[in-house]
Amino acid sequence: MASVLIREAKEGDCGNILRLIRLRELAEYEKLSDQVKISEEALRADGFGENPFYHCLVAEILPVPGEPQGQGIGSKIIKKVAEVALDKGRSQFRLAVLDWNKGAMDLYKALGAQDLTEAEGWHCFRFEGEAMRELAGK
Amino acid sequence: MASVLIREAKEGDCGNILRLIRLRELAEYEKLSDQVKISEEALRADGFGENPFYHCLVAEILPVPGEPQGQGIGSKIIKKVAEVALDKGRSQFRLAVLDWNKGAMDLYKALGAQDLTEAEGWHCFRFEGEAMRELAGK
Repeated sequence: MASVLIREAKEGDCGNILRLIRLRELAEYEKLSDQVKISEEALRADGFGENPFYHCLVAEILPVPGEPQGQGIGSKIIKKVAEVALDKGRSQFRLAVLDWNKGAMDLYKALGAQDLTEAEGWHCFRFEGEAMRELAGK
Repeated sequence: MASVLIREAKEGDCGNILRLIRLRELAEYEKLSDQVKISEEALRADGFGENPFYHCLVAEILPVPGEPQGQGIGSKIIKKVAEVALDKGRSQFRLAVLDWNKGAMDLYKALGAQDLTEAEGWHCFRFEGEAMRELAGK
């Protein structure tokens, strides 16, 4: 089986993280490609400054020739997130997923997550761009 | 009209913030009251330490006798959030709302927000408690 190491991201990972965000975007949002505007500079500034705006884990994978890649990496990252969250004294963590992404939804449910949108009716609202500037009077 | 001042929360506000969270919980989650387990100590530690986990705005209201209270405070807070977000270089901000809360949904839409759950099919998944401990092997 492929060997997988899950570790905290370093600032030098930002270029690769951005490439993964863009790949993911291509896969998920064919029609919404203008949604990802982030730059490597912004990733560095937001995640590795004095008061980081996000934290990030990366999976380093050493593939075994002839074996399928990618199996179990999602679960491993989610397990690590649970570990980090408990270590930091958090009582829960959340993930957002698109409703047609059955594979991800089934995985999260199998790992013990609850679909709050389905179970309780939570909707996610986004303010951005012109709406934000108008609200702020800018 | 009632005079409303929107300002950043101070550590000394945590007692009142907790009371508001509990009031809100009573109003929204009659059957889910075990969801709010936060203490004043946790609010202080998470929001006012070296690397704050959340930021908070409070509305100070000076009511005018005989006038209805509360009108327009939601909009004022959302406008302030937009201002703070732009000042910090953010390109968007998000809110979660329950689907039966028509008043809030209509307000957010009127202020220019998009319902991502409706428009794109985003679902919110939560991991907590026993599921988290099992994932983390704790």
